[in-house]
Amino acid sequence: MDEVKLFGFWPSPFSRRVIWALKLKGVDYEYIEENLPHSKSNLLLQYNPVHKKIPVLVHGGKAIAESLVILEYIDGVWSQNPLLPNDAHERSVARFWAKFIDEKTRTMWEFFQKFGEEQEKAITTNLEILRTIEKHGLGEKKFFGGDKIGLPDLVFGMVIHMLVPMEEVVGVKLIKADTFPRLHAWMKNFSEEPVIKDNVPDHNRVIDFLKIRRESYRISSHHNH
Amino acid sequence: MDEVKLFGFWPSPFSRRVIWALKLKGVDYEYIEENLPHSKSNLLLQYNPVHKKIPVLVHGGKAIAESLVILEYIDGVWSQNPLLPNDAHERSVARFWAKFIDEKTRTMWEFFQKFGEEQEKAITTNLEILRTIEKHGLGEKKFFGGDKIGLPDLVFGMVIHMLVPMEEVVGVKLIKADTFPRLHAWMKNFSEEPVIKDNVPDHNRVIDFLKIRRESYRISSHHNH
Repeated sequence: MDEVKLFGFWPSPFSRRVIWALKLKGVDYEYIEENLPHSKSNLLLQYNPVHKKIPVLVHGGKAIAESLVILEYIDGVWSQNPLLPNDAHERSVARFWAKFIDEKTRTMWEFFQKFGEEQEKAITTNLEILRTIEKHGLGEKKFFGGDKIGLPDLVFGMVIHMLVPMEEVVGVKLIKADTFPRLHAWMKNFSEEPVIKDNVPDHNRVIDFLKIRRESYRISSHHNH
Repeated sequence: MDEVKLFGFWPSPFSRRVIWALKLKGVDYEYIEENLPHSKSNLLLQYNPVHKKIPVLVHGGKAIAESLVILEYIDGVWSQNPLLPNDAHERSVARFWAKFIDEKTRTMWEFFQKFGEEQEKAITTNLEILRTIEKHGLGEKKFFGGDKIGLPDLVFGMVIHMLVPMEEVVGVKLIKADTFPRLHAWMKNFSEEPVIKDNVPDHNRVIDFLKIRRESYRISSHHNH
């Protein structure tokens, strides 16, 4: 009855953050890979009728959708290795940054999806977002909230397994050590944590996946011009 | 030291939900009206350097931005009249709908901001959003979570003091009793709650405010065509 299932898609940052949270908590779960973007399982559609999207967590037969809502749920049910601080104000700061980064995620992909002038604009926007996180979000601490990985780190984690490979495929470096020293240090700290290191998708597999995506964006961009 | 201050803007649904939460909790606070859209106070810019937007809650000198983050904070600090249920799964359902409605709010205003074909499209989108809430969000209960006002109700509350006046100014009725019986019943239940009824902006003042806005959208729409 207390079975935990996760519906995900291997390169998706949205299911990846849930995987990391479950691993951090040491929760056993069954992972169900959705064959996206080609098809969606009937179970996924049944469990998330509103968005019809991964990730969906099913716990004791009850479904939860939306990655941030799932992370809050996981932290509420399994209290070990807390994702949110105890202090009410610190909790709100963590939630603020998790929400900020979550909302910017799709915008941050545009430099990968667009070409020419539109790509240049997307790069400028990305640098602004990164500057905001560098200046206001990350201090001198190892992670957003201090010494331990918390909610905003899990959300920003897409940088290491998605944004960096995107940079590689596009041939643009956004997070340079000299312009973003804090972000750069964070990337090193985060990717070296055992739970993260052991649970990122294979780099070459991501690169191959992204090359095909980039090519499909290029084709549809040509058709639209 | 435990002073509570709220920076808001009287017609804004984003500060309105925070006002309702504070009133429901019976928390005394000082309300600071921002003179939007003309100017922003130095304090607002200092307290919310990332978004530079209301609402901002200041509690004991510490600032919290983003209305959903503020509502979670308020519910965490003042436990009376809880905005979130105790049960972990029910909490996640409440958070799911609060997030869903919050994300759709600006989209739902487009029928008020646009004209002609674009307005027609915005109306179609609105009806889809409303159908989703009618079908999946609201059951036979009085409010989203049962007998008491909770997080999703406060977020959806913009319907009564913003969407309905917008319908009036535009001359379009979206939430009809026969197509959306549950939404219609919810509107009645919500607007009759004393804490809500006593804390909505004056209807005529909203109408006057919206008429000026609508006119400015009309002018810029003419310039763009």
